[in-house]
Amino acid sequence: MYYTLIVDFLVMNYNKKFMRKAIALSIENIKNGGGPFGAVIVKDGKIVSTGVNCVTVNSDPTAHAEIIAIRKASKKLGSFDLTGCDIYTSCEPCPMCLGAVYWAHLDKMYYGNTKSDAKNIGFDDSFIYDELELKPENRQVRTTQLLPEEAIVAFETWSKTEDKVRY
Amino acid sequence: MYYTLIVDFLVMNYNKKFMRKAIALSIENIKNGGGPFGAVIVKDGKIVSTGVNCVTVNSDPTAHAEIIAIRKASKKLGSFDLTGCDIYTSCEPCPMCLGAVYWAHLDKMYYGNTKSDAKNIGFDDSFIYDELELKPENRQVRTTQLLPEEAIVAFETWSKTEDKVRY
Repeated sequence: MYYTLIVDFLVMNYNKKFMRKAIALSIENIKNGGGPFGAVIVKDGKIVSTGVNCVTVNSDPTAHAEIIAIRKASKKLGSFDLTGCDIYTSCEPCPMCLGAVYWAHLDKMYYGNTKSDAKNIGFDDSFIYDELELKPENRQVRTTQLLPEEAIVAFETWSKTEDKVRY
Repeated sequence: MYYTLIVDFLVMNYNKKFMRKAIALSIENIKNGGGPFGAVIVKDGKIVSTGVNCVTVNSDPTAHAEIIAIRKASKKLGSFDLTGCDIYTSCEPCPMCLGAVYWAHLDKMYYGNTKSDAKNIGFDDSFIYDELELKPENRQVRTTQLLPEEAIVAFETWSKTEDKVRY
């Protein structure tokens, strides 16, 4: 009983430490001209990488804190598969970043602010979540399927390729 | 009447030309050891950038064809806002890439294969779409909110900052 309580307390403190780092990065980044977002990737109790939002600073719409932290961690660990790593992000990820969390196979995710908090200060996270749930033809981005009979050749070729690296 | 038909024919041929380029890139990329995906970004009838899937080649889980094409176009045009550009992608984007399409403010999107086609050859696109529709606590990535009362300070600071660049 006491043992379980002590372990819970230690784990919670451990998690809070990394979340506080992500939050500190998010606040610091505003002073540097970036958006109010920070992220930290942790493996075996150590920080592997950090990221802050650099959309405006780098002129890159994909440069969200989580994407940057994932790219840096992958480079550092030499793998596109971050199994065994956790991410601490100062805000619930947008669909782009949550997609990246899945592709990277991160184990656990901790977040501070919510997508509604982000919406309240003018960010599109919540809007994009709503759009993704719609059928392509009902989304605000006008979407058209073209030449599926030609596009499928790539997938047929991939299926027949024997020495491919899966991911 | 005839005029409309001719314009439709020309626009369709124009769109098919760029889609065929994206498809050619997707097939070529298999030979180079990458995944079967290609994308092209077009502005005013000219190709601004291209991208192919480099996840395994670059050890980067975010290196999907669309993300690479968007990053290259943003760098070339010197802006995180790609309003006025269209994207032609050999496969319906995954949530990560569709999120990026929104953040980049691309005008129109054309795709060849569907997310179901991608699922049929072993890719997780369809699974990730399903996960995003679930509440965070029901997703396969274990998700926990931490320290929201501390995280919100970044958003409050952002709101009070006067000379920020919005995106």
